[in-house]
Amino acid sequence: MLKTNPGNYFEDFRLGQTIRHATPRTVTAGDVALYTALYGSRFALQSSDAFARAVGYPQAPVDDLLTFHVVFGKTVPDVSLNAVANLGYADCRFLRAVYPGDTLSTVSEVIGLKENSNGKTGTVYVRSVGTNQKGEEVLSYVRWVMVRKRDEQAPAPEAMVPTPPKRVDLSELGRACPVINTKAWNDGLAGSSHRFKDYAAGEKIDHVDGMTVEEAEHMLATRLYQNTAKVHFNQHSEAQGRFGRRLIYGGHVISLARALSFNGLANAFHIAAINGGRHVAPLFAGGTVFAWSEIIETADVPGRNDVGALRIVTRATRDVPCAEFPVEDGAPDKPGVILELDYWALMVR
Amino acid sequence: MLKTNPGNYFEDFRLGQTIRHATPRTVTAGDVALYTALYGSRFALQSSDAFARAVGYPQAPVDDLLTFHVVFGKTVPDVSLNAVANLGYADCRFLRAVYPGDTLSTVSEVIGLKENSNGKTGTVYVRSVGTNQKGEEVLSYVRWVMVRKRDEQAPAPEAMVPTPPKRVDLSELGRACPVINTKAWNDGLAGSSHRFKDYAAGEKIDHVDGMTVEEAEHMLATRLYQNTAKVHFNQHSEAQGRFGRRLIYGGHVISLARALSFNGLANAFHIAAINGGRHVAPLFAGGTVFAWSEIIETADVPGRNDVGALRIVTRATRDVPCAEFPVEDGAPDKPGVILELDYWALMVR
Amino acid sequence: MLKTNPGNYFEDFRLGQTIRHATPRTVTAGDVALYTALYGSRFALQSSDAFARAVGYPQAPVDDLLTFHVVFGKTVPDVSLNAVANLGYADCRFLRAVYPGDTLSTVSEVIGLKENSNGKTGTVYVRSVGTNQKGEEVLSYVRWVMVRKRDEQAPAPEAMVPTPPKRVDLSELGRACPVINTKAWNDGLAGSSHRFKDYAAGEKIDHVDGMTVEEAEHMLATRLYQNTAKVHFNQHSEAQGRFGRRLIYGGHVISLARALSFNGLANAFHIAAINGGRHVAPLFAGGTVFAWSEIIETADVPGRNDVGALRIVTRATRDVPCAEFPVEDGAPDKPGVILELDYWALMVR
Repeated sequence: MLKTNPGNYFEDFRLGQTIRHATPRTVTAGDVALYTALYGSRFALQSSDAFARAVGYPQAPVDDLLTFHVVFGKTVPDVSLNAVANLGYADCRFLRAVYPGDTLSTVSEVIGLKENSNGKTGTVYVRSVGTNQKGEEVLSYVRWVMVRKRDEQAPAPEAMVPTPPKRVDLSELGRACPVINTKAWNDGLAGSSHRFKDYAAGEKIDHVDGMTVEEAEHMLATRLYQNTAKVHFNQHSEAQGRFGRRLIYGGHVISLARALSFNGLANAFHIAAINGGRHVAPLFAGGTVFAWSEIIETADVPGRNDVGALRIVTRATRDVPCAEFPVEDGAPDKPGVILELDYWALMVR
Repeated sequence: MLKTNPGNYFEDFRLGQTIRHATPRTVTAGDVALYTALYGSRFALQSSDAFARAVGYPQAPVDDLLTFHVVFGKTVPDVSLNAVANLGYADCRFLRAVYPGDTLSTVSEVIGLKENSNGKTGTVYVRSVGTNQKGEEVLSYVRWVMVRKRDEQAPAPEAMVPTPPKRVDLSELGRACPVINTKAWNDGLAGSSHRFKDYAAGEKIDHVDGMTVEEAEHMLATRLYQNTAKVHFNQHSEAQGRFGRRLIYGGHVISLARALSFNGLANAFHIAAINGGRHVAPLFAGGTVFAWSEIIETADVPGRNDVGALRIVTRATRDVPCAEFPVEDGAPDKPGVILELDYWALMVR
Repeated sequence: MLKTNPGNYFEDFRLGQTIRHATPRTVTAGDVALYTALYGSRFALQSSDAFARAVGYPQAPVDDLLTFHVVFGKTVPDVSLNAVANLGYADCRFLRAVYPGDTLSTVSEVIGLKENSNGKTGTVYVRSVGTNQKGEEVLSYVRWVMVRKRDEQAPAPEAMVPTPPKRVDLSELGRACPVINTKAWNDGLAGSSHRFKDYAAGEKIDHVDGMTVEEAEHMLATRLYQNTAKVHFNQHSEAQGRFGRRLIYGGHVISLARALSFNGLANAFHIAAINGGRHVAPLFAGGTVFAWSEIIETADVPGRNDVGALRIVTRATRDVPCAEFPVEDGAPDKPGVILELDYWALMVR
């Protein structure tokens, strides 16, 4: 019996199937330091225990996206080892703050299956849930990927396509956020005097700075998350592949864009939910990532007068500064937009 | 008097000499995170405090090879600064688990000396012992290196060649491993349902994945271990050297091979001993490392019914996938085998 | 109103102005591990809790330069985002040891202003003070930078040029250093038997080793310090700039030089003050850094018989070994001296 993991092929997935993913992971101050070194994020809440305590957290929580990457990484060997493409995320909700010392595990359920008309691939929809060492849910999201069939003759399953919400409901936001002491929130330390009331739907913000990515950086990051997708690490095989190069983990781009967004959104201290995310074009080492954001909606969070919610679409580009707010132009091989991320951030009032 | 360390030359070593190496090192959660980022290791025991506690450890132990590298690194300024070649390791025994917060020191004893017939170099054999802050031994191994003579006219010492065992005795295994609660061992979390009984001598396992190495990565690793060997860091001088490039620390290859071996040996949770190791050919940045393992022997560990021992030979290659189980072919300049590591791993029953 | 930070231009600074910089930062064992991985520093005091406790510290303190970089990094978005050149440091005093868990913040005061005769730029002098979570000062230094004017027509302020001391007074040294138990100081573990009495003014020490720097390394370091200066990160814009390449943060060179200086100054365990520092020429990835030191003065520290002070000038070079003790030769585009750092180190007696 084969001892190595060949990954699952499309016909291996069954609707309703539950997959417990390997390698629970204790997140530590070491991971937090590496996350800072990899992205240069400067949000005060995640950087400072003293700041976090002053505003209502027991200590500095782990960056929301570090939690996302660790929870996500575990699913790769079971869900996307034979994936052709990562198609999207939706209904991603951060349910509980994660602190250094917490141990994260992930379980996925297959919630949709649809074979493609070519008979060679199919789309697999999973709901993945990350839990901490107490069994409390910290993160839940839907993801869909296009996966190869092992045997093209294998019969197609009955198609089932789930319909996650396009927009996470306001009642779901704030679950991972304690009551914030808005008076103790020091704008000088946080890096901006702009609070919730200062943002309006339709507003566009160029995050100005650019960050060039090196091979060593994205590989360190992706291994830190114990994400094993081959395309990120193996130049020997990728040299023969579609791009001739290692492909950078899409989550690395999300984290870069979020770190860059500090310049303009410094008080958007918590990602409460991701409504949807698309990796529009690939990123390779040597590329420089820029980002800009559009405020889509501003909303009250039910029962909360300490924080408001901003629905933000952040676009990241490869080798294109964002002063003119570029959008996808359908030319994936040229410099341009590589990421579109639609998310809810909480901002202090 | 010279204040910088010129390293020891062959004629500086005396049989029975004891060398206390500099820089005790407290290993922390930061080192553990970096180790994960550098190799992507996914063994559950070392990744999760919760998993470790469930099976019988007080918390997640530090990866055995991280301990090895830290203990080894200290010996370089005294033992191998003037080495021509690192010839081998033997009788390497892991004697006690190491946890974040422990402080490691190393003492070496010269146990053998043999001048080469050319009169220019000689082989130095040392037994190096790593201890923790309580003085408890955590690691003991024999290493031999070919070292330059400062003065070719210096008289040869009487030759003394130690004969460490080719195979560490079974009674030595398991000393760093508490009693494992085999029922609490969750195969799903550990990443494999294959336990000790499922492996047999003669079995060969291709670990499938490949990992390309960048200059920044191996230098970060080697500095983390405070290993000062010049060949790893100084492109200015190496450009004039034998290879024209920086040479990657051999231990980096060992750690990569071990991390890759998770795919096929996920329940081989602890390296109990290294019978021998040889760096057959060098690795340089840009090379992609693959690995495969052969089970040489399966054995009971005296007095233990929770774990069994697998004697494994893992071979790592440069730029050669291992589906056909390549062995050394004597062409060190071409893609091929770069490491042969013969070790005992404990696996849960 | 602009939500992104455009940085301050020369005419935005006012004499006596106080700037509270953003993002307090809790320093952790993760940062310490990264610092070791980035520079390979081997000083026993900073590497080992056990060693630190034996000699009189409560635990291993954070490397003085890690403290410097974190405190400094915070000032960049407010002080030097529009800087043309970083002109110098002076009167830098380490006032209190920093330990993992401490949270660092920085406040700067504008203490001098002088417009340049070209009317396009001016020099800004700031005193920056780093404090811990208790409000205790840990670091204080003067820095001056040449900053662009936004509007060349803006009137010049009255010139005020502060005159920090060329040499930090002996009474200021030792404030961050507890009484050292000199008998418990183990020279073997510390890496040298040379103590304070063994050094004399005029002595020159070649630190021998060279360290090549990669893009990924200096960017990881500079992000770890949350230093946002664009020139270090954005190859897309730097390709059009003066050098065509990303410029390495000058502090990265300081840390490399200090780490290399272990080989010759192993018992100079603490940087008590920096009298002055100049980045004589830039460093780029691919360059190899070497260093040598000259002992300028040896001095008693008032009231202390456990430690003495060495005034040291350390020079770092790019691609030039230091056996012949090179000094600045006014050819910044060629291999040669890149850093001149004049500092006080404490050494055990």
